[in-house]
Amino acid sequence: MNGASERLQKQMAFILEADKEKFIQRQTYLTDGERRENDAEHAWHLALMTLLLSEYANREIDVLRTLSMVLIHDIVEIDAGDTYAYDPVGRQTQRQRETEAADRLFGLLPEDQCRRLRDLWEEFEAGQTPEAAFAHAMDNLQPTMLNAAAGGRSWLEHSTRLSSILERHEGTKRGSQTLWEFCRAQYLEPNVENGKITDDCSGEK
Amino acid sequence: MNGASERLQKQMAFILEADKEKFIQRQTYLTDGERRENDAEHAWHLALMTLLLSEYANREIDVLRTLSMVLIHDIVEIDAGDTYAYDPVGRQTQRQRETEAADRLFGLLPEDQCRRLRDLWEEFEAGQTPEAAFAHAMDNLQPTMLNAAAGGRSWLEHSTRLSSILERHEGTKRGSQTLWEFCRAQYLEPNVENGKITDDCSGEK
Repeated sequence: MNGASERLQKQMAFILEADKEKFIQRQTYLTDGERRENDAEHAWHLALMTLLLSEYANREIDVLRTLSMVLIHDIVEIDAGDTYAYDPVGRQTQRQRETEAADRLFGLLPEDQCRRLRDLWEEFEAGQTPEAAFAHAMDNLQPTMLNAAAGGRSWLEHSTRLSSILERHEGTKRGSQTLWEFCRAQYLEPNVENGKITDDCSGEK
Repeated sequence: MNGASERLQKQMAFILEADKEKFIQRQTYLTDGERRENDAEHAWHLALMTLLLSEYANREIDVLRTLSMVLIHDIVEIDAGDTYAYDPVGRQTQRQRETEAADRLFGLLPEDQCRRLRDLWEEFEAGQTPEAAFAHAMDNLQPTMLNAAAGGRSWLEHSTRLSSILERHEGTKRGSQTLWEFCRAQYLEPNVENGKITDDCSGEK
């Protein structure tokens, strides 16, 4: 097409490539307890949650920034694949795989948008700003909610230990103390009691 | 749970119910040409597009409002199902089915958020504000891009006529003249030429 600017061609190339996020399967089961979630569905759910739950952030957040962050936070998995939160081996090579993916994928965009999305993704990875901390709280709370709703299937399949879950949810606490307390009482404690989560912390509770 | 406020319980009930949007199948095939897209994936894709393409809106838009709108625009389909864009019979009962769905689904939320999301959805449906017009442009452009990428399979299956597509894309034009022109030249014209779209407009072209 002659009329379309090079800029728009690049933007649409990235947008089309992003379709592949719908094929990246996560470990989390959906509420039907049968089908696993993919990254695009997950990102949509986090965005919806951010829209509705921002009032519970420990520190005030810019909702648009946080939404932008959760929408793109997993896009590197198109090349790097999903790394299960409780897979220590996969997590060792995760950073390098994801950095190379970020170079290629964000590199499809015009330079200003490449920089903007790359910065957002790096900010998410670092997890230090109020927005990044809240995005991590969403990213932890959502699969925990789904795992509980799906009868703990994913926890059982991985023999997930409570200590690993609590370690991960340190990030939830940093984003939102209120949502962490809800998560612990509603989703974690009942599934420790019924044995879906392996309790390796007894005596410390 | 004693500590959780009624407000947060309602918010999380809505967020969990929203998981069902991942089971609402659309007519559009993904870029693999095999699996159909679901509503949650579609909404995520529109949000990503809004983030990157807002510069092409005919009238200046509030990106956060537009993002919020595209994230929730199809949630009523959890109860009302997906109505194919080119299904005239389904579209006759669509409004009533979707209004009842909006009552139930947004009604799960605390009153202020129920009102906010309901207003956003009504604004999208009316399609008059700059944000709603741009959201419709995204909602039209995205499946057209995917249909083209998937070799026109969905158009062929429905023997979709060019006149219907052009009628629907009047909304794209209202949101973004630039994106409409791109869409026509990149996705529609080649697929009229190769017969994937039924040309019932020849002589008018």
